[in-house]
Amino acid sequence: MIVVMSRGASQAEVDAVCDRIKDLGYAAHLSAGKERTIIGVIGDKRPMDETAFRLLDGVEKVVRILKPFKLASRDFHPEDTVVPVNGVRIGGKGIVIMAGPCAVESRAQIMETAYALKEAGVRILRAGAFKPRTSPYSFQGLGTQGLELLAEVRAETGLAIISEVTTPEQVAAVGECADILQIGTRNMSNYALLHAVGESGKPALLKRGMMSTMEELLMSAEYILSHDNYRLMLCERGIRTFETYTRNTLDLSAVPALKQMCHLPVIVDPSHATGNWEWVPALSMAAVAAGADGLLVEVHPHPEQALSDGMQSLRPDRFVEMVARVRAVAEAVGREL
Amino acid sequence: MIVVMSRGASQAEVDAVCDRIKDLGYAAHLSAGKERTIIGVIGDKRPMDETAFRLLDGVEKVVRILKPFKLASRDFHPEDTVVPVNGVRIGGKGIVIMAGPCAVESRAQIMETAYALKEAGVRILRAGAFKPRTSPYSFQGLGTQGLELLAEVRAETGLAIISEVTTPEQVAAVGECADILQIGTRNMSNYALLHAVGESGKPALLKRGMMSTMEELLMSAEYILSHDNYRLMLCERGIRTFETYTRNTLDLSAVPALKQMCHLPVIVDPSHATGNWEWVPALSMAAVAAGADGLLVEVHPHPEQALSDGMQSLRPDRFVEMVARVRAVAEAVGREL
Amino acid sequence: MIVVMSRGASQAEVDAVCDRIKDLGYAAHLSAGKERTIIGVIGDKRPMDETAFRLLDGVEKVVRILKPFKLASRDFHPEDTVVPVNGVRIGGKGIVIMAGPCAVESRAQIMETAYALKEAGVRILRAGAFKPRTSPYSFQGLGTQGLELLAEVRAETGLAIISEVTTPEQVAAVGECADILQIGTRNMSNYALLHAVGESGKPALLKRGMMSTMEELLMSAEYILSHDNYRLMLCERGIRTFETYTRNTLDLSAVPALKQMCHLPVIVDPSHATGNWEWVPALSMAAVAAGADGLLVEVHPHPEQALSDGMQSLRPDRFVEMVARVRAVAEAVGREL
Amino acid sequence: MIVVMSRGASQAEVDAVCDRIKDLGYAAHLSAGKERTIIGVIGDKRPMDETAFRLLDGVEKVVRILKPFKLASRDFHPEDTVVPVNGVRIGGKGIVIMAGPCAVESRAQIMETAYALKEAGVRILRAGAFKPRTSPYSFQGLGTQGLELLAEVRAETGLAIISEVTTPEQVAAVGECADILQIGTRNMSNYALLHAVGESGKPALLKRGMMSTMEELLMSAEYILSHDNYRLMLCERGIRTFETYTRNTLDLSAVPALKQMCHLPVIVDPSHATGNWEWVPALSMAAVAAGADGLLVEVHPHPEQALSDGMQSLRPDRFVEMVARVRAVAEAVGREL
Repeated sequence: MIVVMSRGASQAEVDAVCDRIKDLGYAAHLSAGKERTIIGVIGDKRPMDETAFRLLDGVEKVVRILKPFKLASRDFHPEDTVVPVNGVRIGGKGIVIMAGPCAVESRAQIMETAYALKEAGVRILRAGAFKPRTSPYSFQGLGTQGLELLAEVRAETGLAIISEVTTPEQVAAVGECADILQIGTRNMSNYALLHAVGESGKPALLKRGMMSTMEELLMSAEYILSHDNYRLMLCERGIRTFETYTRNTLDLSAVPALKQMCHLPVIVDPSHATGNWEWVPALSMAAVAAGADGLLVEVHPHPEQALSDGMQSLRPDRFVEMVARVRAVAEAVGREL
Repeated sequence: MIVVMSRGASQAEVDAVCDRIKDLGYAAHLSAGKERTIIGVIGDKRPMDETAFRLLDGVEKVVRILKPFKLASRDFHPEDTVVPVNGVRIGGKGIVIMAGPCAVESRAQIMETAYALKEAGVRILRAGAFKPRTSPYSFQGLGTQGLELLAEVRAETGLAIISEVTTPEQVAAVGECADILQIGTRNMSNYALLHAVGESGKPALLKRGMMSTMEELLMSAEYILSHDNYRLMLCERGIRTFETYTRNTLDLSAVPALKQMCHLPVIVDPSHATGNWEWVPALSMAAVAAGADGLLVEVHPHPEQALSDGMQSLRPDRFVEMVARVRAVAEAVGREL
Repeated sequence: MIVVMSRGASQAEVDAVCDRIKDLGYAAHLSAGKERTIIGVIGDKRPMDETAFRLLDGVEKVVRILKPFKLASRDFHPEDTVVPVNGVRIGGKGIVIMAGPCAVESRAQIMETAYALKEAGVRILRAGAFKPRTSPYSFQGLGTQGLELLAEVRAETGLAIISEVTTPEQVAAVGECADILQIGTRNMSNYALLHAVGESGKPALLKRGMMSTMEELLMSAEYILSHDNYRLMLCERGIRTFETYTRNTLDLSAVPALKQMCHLPVIVDPSHATGNWEWVPALSMAAVAAGADGLLVEVHPHPEQALSDGMQSLRPDRFVEMVARVRAVAEAVGREL
Repeated sequence: MIVVMSRGASQAEVDAVCDRIKDLGYAAHLSAGKERTIIGVIGDKRPMDETAFRLLDGVEKVVRILKPFKLASRDFHPEDTVVPVNGVRIGGKGIVIMAGPCAVESRAQIMETAYALKEAGVRILRAGAFKPRTSPYSFQGLGTQGLELLAEVRAETGLAIISEVTTPEQVAAVGECADILQIGTRNMSNYALLHAVGESGKPALLKRGMMSTMEELLMSAEYILSHDNYRLMLCERGIRTFETYTRNTLDLSAVPALKQMCHLPVIVDPSHATGNWEWVPALSMAAVAAGADGLLVEVHPHPEQALSDGMQSLRPDRFVEMVARVRAVAEAVGREL
């Protein structure tokens, strides 16, 4: 951390900052420029508290030098993390496609979808039992009954399951039926939930908040990693911008940027990002070309009857067609599908 | 809701849409324009599901006509809602200032602050026992011990307390020590928490998500109101934009806009919005001039030692000075302080 | 356009709206719902002026049905537009890469770059003589002298040139030395410039404003097309969001969305979007996978000495390596490079 | 400027950075921390070019310490700048209201408005002859004929005029009829225009770009100030965010922040910010309470017939009512109207 003194700061003010630095257990290193005195704060505790210095007299600003995350960082863990689920190695050379409906709606719907996807080569089925919805009047998921259907479909088809948890109390129950716990965009900063998922030790997928920076996503990951649960994937699913023609703005630059900063697998959800099934294949191929380790795609056998997110769900036949195109791109960038 | 058919949609496609409308229990009203056929969906169920129509063949887009919120709306409840707390009528002619530190840090700190604020005329003390923090390595609040200190300060000073809840399980405990439950910006879409606060029947303050629209804020309010808990205030606390010089961008247009759309009191938090105590007085006066019913302001006796948010906390002497200036503006706009 | 009357609007108010509609030369079509009366405005003039209705008594809102752009639309021109430049067909099956330095800096720099790119198979060289810079103290380009160097490099190498115009007066001079006129992100709404480029009849590349919606980009295109200049390409170059880790947020969803809405070729500039050469190859491959018709890439022989944008410029050897990888992706999606 | 070396950077890399610093005419100051070596770049040339260092081997990041603007800064010019126009001192104790229609539409319209405003105490009339419009099919202003009407209204009423310039060539002609040249939000980064306005020496009002940071606004101001034209005001008019209920998001925090950073008067335009006349009085009062030096307000005698921006225009009677309320707030904050 660097403390920049204001122009004309007095020697006494500089001394006071240095004293404070030492009080907090760091070393101070002075550097007197032509216009400003600059004081380096030397030490390795993290995170340092900027405010402790910013409010002292004569201080103009405080500049952070170290990244605020640690366990997620490549400095800490240089190799790629691979999360094994149901024989699939997420984060390795292979690209994983997790697909399925937004929500479990009925036994018939989830079974029909599961068999269609299995035939298409999918090994991880996505489907929610608990659905956070903007409106209290919208379908909120089947809850416990949905979990039972997921357990059934897993037993019958052998597909692994990824399903959303929205409160700490759900973690145990969802964890019994699902192989991967999904933390949705609205819960990226639900720290009680992050702690619970960390403690569970289960593989987890953490979605970027629609309003969150990459750094904040990594800080949320840090909550889970700090419980020694390293079976974690990150998911870019679009951020909120001024553009309204698409549901969100998919930030594919986040793929190479996150892979450079951290060691966790990065998954892309093109369905929520675009909000429109017609653009999902193009963005799926783009995600893989950008270096994503996997896709999370909404598929519904009858999108026009879906109780949620029908607009962005692919029909199974269109999904199959898309998989072939994604495979070609995967191979072109030296990956496998 | 209005369904806009694409140019050249066939009669069969138009018929299919009309059939679907009737199947779902609405009436259809056709309007054939020069370029497009437009079909009105008539009925009063809310929310209607747009997707049911958007995916039918020949449909170009679906336009929502009714607002998606109901209980929060002026249509439903034309008069201003007033929330009485500790003899203060929030949402009436008077303007309420809730002030205090970000977090309870110690008995000494909270008592010193409480007495200073009481002397300044404040009747509601803000302070958090549970603090959601971006970093797992930051101070997370004193938890239960903090609640005990809040109970003590309330008993001793007679101040009412507003304090944050971050999980459904905390609602009972916080509700015992606090008069108003605060739902923070990160939890605006934590629906389990909204349900729990609604059920508690306690007065509540719901902060706008830092990247939420006003309409989404009202939809979250709807979760609480749907439990017949009308003792609810909304709080504008700054939204996230591309501007980084201020911590957030305070959206004061939201004050007259929300007051026009809904009947709930609107409070403004200038401390989190600006992130800098130097700008808090100017924005506090502006908030009152814009029509806010109250302010939520961070005050700390020793900001440079604060464990969180010190940068945006006013010292008590500066707060006292600010109150006088805010009072003058309140009177200029026909309000009282 | 549809006029939605407020709940409880009187018959007289409805009549007044209908009269106004007829006065303006449209037909009115009434539809009385349970809660609201809705009035369709029928006619094909574009753009209709919403304000004419929104301010009448009893009107709650006005909803636009038709898209505001016409000449850019697929309705008007269903086939893909192909812009031929120097034997390259931009917008056809082939993918074009335009590459070069941000600015012409010297004869040596531009010649060295041109020959390196030519050898790599590039046929269109990008380089600016006039540079709009945030700071008046930054390098602003070589101006007229830069144009002379561009003319020289074109004559000597046979490469076509794309170069930026920033004022209407520059159009003639830049048009003599360049084959494609580039309109930069800051000038997307510089309507005098758009008119001048339209009148010139020269091939043009219009960059999306960093703060502009896709619809606004198409409206700006409309200014150029309205002069019967259809030799136009659009360019997505990143938009401004709250994320600051990357220079801008590249909006690749815009590629399939724009190609669906309009008939113009869509080019992607991954250099300005990311602001970091390390991420340019990944985003270039992603852009092609998403359906882009071409790339605009910054290449500089000595990025660390560049007078502008060095951080995001590839060295020629890295560019050559990237071209091979982009080619593999192009083939995987059925395109050619 | 500070160069942060990456963990494990070699001594040779550190030396290379120091050599580069000296080559560019600065001094280097080393500071070796536990994890990182940090190198201060000492000198007062501005702006320093970060790229020169960021691309050297072993460099992790470069941190700017000095503000990039100079002439606009309080460091350079500590006192408030006052711009005298027609006997009004903009930036002094008094608050100035500039009001009028978006565009001159006819002799009758501009005269009726001018007399109504004069009676209400207004001394500066706003009205555009050249209107930049998103759509080429919208009304673009009366052009030269509009300027003649402005000259006439000025001669007849004695009101000063503020009117927009959109190209460098218009500066002379608009400057003859208008007392203040307005640079619109779309032209904040039209550097050729900024130079022309700077050279003209005329009083000018520079609007913040709808997606520009405060720092960028000040850099654009720097273009004008660098021509020794200090008769400049800044204008906050709303920025673009994800919120769509209001036309833009008025950033009132920019008022105290800009007044702290720079010495120029700050004007607020609540009409474009909200896009709705109903919210203009509330935001006008808020702007004055926040410390604005003036307001720019749209007034039209018949908003429902306005050729542009009718939705956000106040009728003269409502404007008169608003002025009284704004005056009360101005007095409450120690200003005059």
